[in-house]
Amino acid sequence: MASLTKLVVKTTARKQLVDITDKVADIIIASKIKTGICQLFIAHTTAAITTADLDPGTDKDYLDAFEKLMPELSYRHSHNPNHVVDHILSSIIGPSLSVFFENEQIILGAWQRIVIVELDGPRERNILIRLID
Amino acid sequence: MASLTKLVVKTTARKQLVDITDKVADIIIASKIKTGICQLFIAHTTAAITTADLDPGTDKDYLDAFEKLMPELSYRHSHNPNHVVDHILSSIIGPSLSVFFENEQIILGAWQRIVIVELDGPRERNILIRLID
Amino acid sequence: MASLTKLVVKTTARKQLVDITDKVADIIIASKIKTGICQLFIAHTTAAITTADLDPGTDKDYLDAFEKLMPELSYRHSHNPNHVVDHILSSIIGPSLSVFFENEQIILGAWQRIVIVELDGPRERNILIRLID
Repeated sequence: MASLTKLVVKTTARKQLVDITDKVADIIIASKIKTGICQLFIAHTTAAITTADLDPGTDKDYLDAFEKLMPELSYRHSHNPNHVVDHILSSIIGPSLSVFFENEQIILGAWQRIVIVELDGPRERNILIRLID
Repeated sequence: MASLTKLVVKTTARKQLVDITDKVADIIIASKIKTGICQLFIAHTTAAITTADLDPGTDKDYLDAFEKLMPELSYRHSHNPNHVVDHILSSIIGPSLSVFFENEQIILGAWQRIVIVELDGPRERNILIRLID
Repeated sequence: MASLTKLVVKTTARKQLVDITDKVADIIIASKIKTGICQLFIAHTTAAITTADLDPGTDKDYLDAFEKLMPELSYRHSHNPNHVVDHILSSIIGPSLSVFFENEQIILGAWQRIVIVELDGPRERNILIRLID
């Protein structure tokens, strides 16, 4: 049983894809677990976690598509109706992700990166990480 | 190793977001595991599981956006073409979720709740839950 | 601790939903774990993993809806702007899934199947599978 790690990521823009693959890799190397599953969870409602292709410019493609995807409706959300779509998109993409590692290396596709999707930044975002052997 | 728990939730409307956070918290407290991961899975094809912000009225915002999001096409689905979009949306949001807990407390963002998305209710929905220490 | 299994699936069309439930069931039966969680991860950025209803014709309904869902924009992605939407959709549906099994049987809804969503095939797709007891 590995202990729980909290990874804090400071995002720098209102909308952003942040590659956290190297930070996750560091946590795996710092642990004593060589092979297993790395569970990730983002403890927020205007950000999500997934994997993505980050070929140059593609992060902006993602963000443009996310914005166009969400219907423009007369929303009720009292806190700030303008950003309810950020909540909805976060729930659709989802807050949890599981990746695998073997011999301390994360197993990803050739262009696959672990990313957090920031939809209401800039902010400090808390990602919980736990390794299971 | 914790045993498998089946949580049955009776939904009360055709479309609904149901907050199951307190029920999941009860299962964690009733277990002997203080810190770990809580895995959830919904065994249905017209409902999904995720986290959401449930500020008053926001549940309706989610449901309105989900309905507008899905394209109106001439679908083939023989069982009932009208509700094929419920299947598709369920698959996109996804049936599985992992949350973390520490000292018997689920670790969530300030406004983050664990929800099931009911898209073809009212029904009894089965959620499988397992705690990993 | 179960060892890591790599499942290779050859897809046969550009866009396709492939039912891998029986292959996952075989892996569970071949293991010595009777009850637990089966973690799945697809190591690609133009394919995703989820559960779906596969009533005849419904796979095509999913693919039609996915195509209509994605906004037509002037994308930047330098590798091939035409398929950036395949990356985006893969990230939204997600690369990881957790299912439960009991007495060597996967616990799914009546019509629920484990599927990979192929968005840029035909290809060999690698799915990592690990059982946790």
